[in-house]
Amino acid sequence: MRMTTIPFALAMIGILAVSGVAYGIDKEPISPIVAVKVSNPALVELGKKLFFEPRLSKSGSISCNSCHNLSMGGSDNIKTSIGYKWQQGPINSPSVLNSSMNLAQFWDGRAKDLKAQAGGPINNPGEMAFTHDLAIDMLTSIPAYRAEFKSVFGKETIDIDQVTTAIAEFEKILVTPNSRLDQWLVGDKSALSKNELAGYQLFKKSGCVACHNGAAVGGNSFQKMGMVAPYQTKNQAQGRSAVTGNDADRLSFKVPTLRNVELTYPYFHDGEVATLTEAVDIMGRLQLGRTFSADENAKLVAFLKTMTGDQPQIVLPILPPSNDSTPRPQPFG
Amino acid sequence: MRMTTIPFALAMIGILAVSGVAYGIDKEPISPIVAVKVSNPALVELGKKLFFEPRLSKSGSISCNSCHNLSMGGSDNIKTSIGYKWQQGPINSPSVLNSSMNLAQFWDGRAKDLKAQAGGPINNPGEMAFTHDLAIDMLTSIPAYRAEFKSVFGKETIDIDQVTTAIAEFEKILVTPNSRLDQWLVGDKSALSKNELAGYQLFKKSGCVACHNGAAVGGNSFQKMGMVAPYQTKNQAQGRSAVTGNDADRLSFKVPTLRNVELTYPYFHDGEVATLTEAVDIMGRLQLGRTFSADENAKLVAFLKTMTGDQPQIVLPILPPSNDSTPRPQPFG
Repeated sequence: MRMTTIPFALAMIGILAVSGVAYGIDKEPISPIVAVKVSNPALVELGKKLFFEPRLSKSGSISCNSCHNLSMGGSDNIKTSIGYKWQQGPINSPSVLNSSMNLAQFWDGRAKDLKAQAGGPINNPGEMAFTHDLAIDMLTSIPAYRAEFKSVFGKETIDIDQVTTAIAEFEKILVTPNSRLDQWLVGDKSALSKNELAGYQLFKKSGCVACHNGAAVGGNSFQKMGMVAPYQTKNQAQGRSAVTGNDADRLSFKVPTLRNVELTYPYFHDGEVATLTEAVDIMGRLQLGRTFSADENAKLVAFLKTMTGDQPQIVLPILPPSNDSTPRPQPFG
Repeated sequence: MRMTTIPFALAMIGILAVSGVAYGIDKEPISPIVAVKVSNPALVELGKKLFFEPRLSKSGSISCNSCHNLSMGGSDNIKTSIGYKWQQGPINSPSVLNSSMNLAQFWDGRAKDLKAQAGGPINNPGEMAFTHDLAIDMLTSIPAYRAEFKSVFGKETIDIDQVTTAIAEFEKILVTPNSRLDQWLVGDKSALSKNELAGYQLFKKSGCVACHNGAAVGGNSFQKMGMVAPYQTKNQAQGRSAVTGNDADRLSFKVPTLRNVELTYPYFHDGEVATLTEAVDIMGRLQLGRTFSADENAKLVAFLKTMTGDQPQIVLPILPPSNDSTPRPQPFG
């Protein structure tokens, strides 16, 4: 059902439109995720190594995958992440899955793209707590990395631009096509149950789609958390205003994708909400001024779970070993 | 070169013996690693999930793979591991690769086998800091785990015995055949350079093989660290005497495997030795009463690096999500 059916299904759109389906694919606010075609596998492979490379951190123990775990929906499933020396992160770690579709990266959108994002955690003292220079020193000390970077980038030296380019290219393949919703969108009417379909109709009618739309079902706008009523949180994150300097943007955050939302608990920027039931309830009241009944809530939750797609199949990379000249990690230093 | 060549090569032993090779495979103190045949793939697959399952820890962030990272020789490449709330571990994390060949598990051999070992870190307050009961509660709360355990073990309930059985069965497939030494052992005379072969001869003649022999090149005896001269360390580990109660066993540790030793730095039970050069020097002086010359040391190091085998190709498991009834991790609680 993976890549072969999508072109076939896309070819069926015309038929669906003619047959009078209420929501043909061309009219739906959500579009299917299309599997990524890898154009430069060597670059992606290098990026995969770096994504799993704990030596990009001061402790030698934290990699991108620590907080964006590809076994767990590209997230870490805790409220806020654990950084160097068990520092408590300031905000919930967003999923890396389908993140290439975001209009910008981080909850406040302070990085314009995945490449700009990738360098951030490496030298954030509360996260990987390293420096870009030390990361390059580490990589440069290892002949296998020198050879691989040279083969991929054609240069004699490794720099942080290459590192973040490679990580971003790997992250771009982390898309999750073929969810049951996507199967339904491309024409398989049996892919959703009656209950799930009712949830989808409610999702559209009640206004959720105003922010959660497109292929990622989110990720394409900034919105205030607490439009109708304020969101109660002890979390200190200011959101978009920290980037724009505009006080009107306070508590405005990038709308998270709802793709794989079943896997990316806990919810919201503070990670304080453990269940989809509670998240749907809060979204209804605070963003839409609407209290969903238990039955409505259950339908919406059932619908949300239809957006779990095929998870990327990742063969764990084997990292080239350090050698006598490689600087050692300082986990307790 | 993986599995197909070994039977062929084994068939060549007779020819080698006749042809007057000094060290035929039947006379070598080191034997090749044989690839494992999986008899129960469903059990191994479940064990793989559990090996990568951070929800077996209190923080929801530490899995078996955290300290036995299959991207890094089945070890964590730091002196001692990082436990719950960044506690500093008491001893270097040994590689999980080829660990099924050990006569017992842990440096002091306090677990008789991998199954007995697997439960240890889960409820060690300094490591994963969970309890077996809480681990079972977590697994039992997740329908996909309930179904998978039932399918594998045929029982209605999950227990810790099943958990450790599955983890151990996964670990048993983590062997690394086809190193260049193994290729040489089974008859490919071009697999080792003249220098590496000289290192192997020295390894045998100088007495290293007394403890480092067999398929794992170690792992099959306990020996005192500091036979000829004492090993200076601030590490508090007492070794085998903590298990036997016999003071004569103080500072006696399980001889580590030298398989993949290039990947499993830093060295010794305290992890205080960063390089193979230094490790070889210390072993020579403290265990054999012999100071290797720089040339001898380099030959031995060159030989040691021929024992890096094919690393297990692991497809990262996709873990079933928690649901509303699943107890939440307590990373900062």
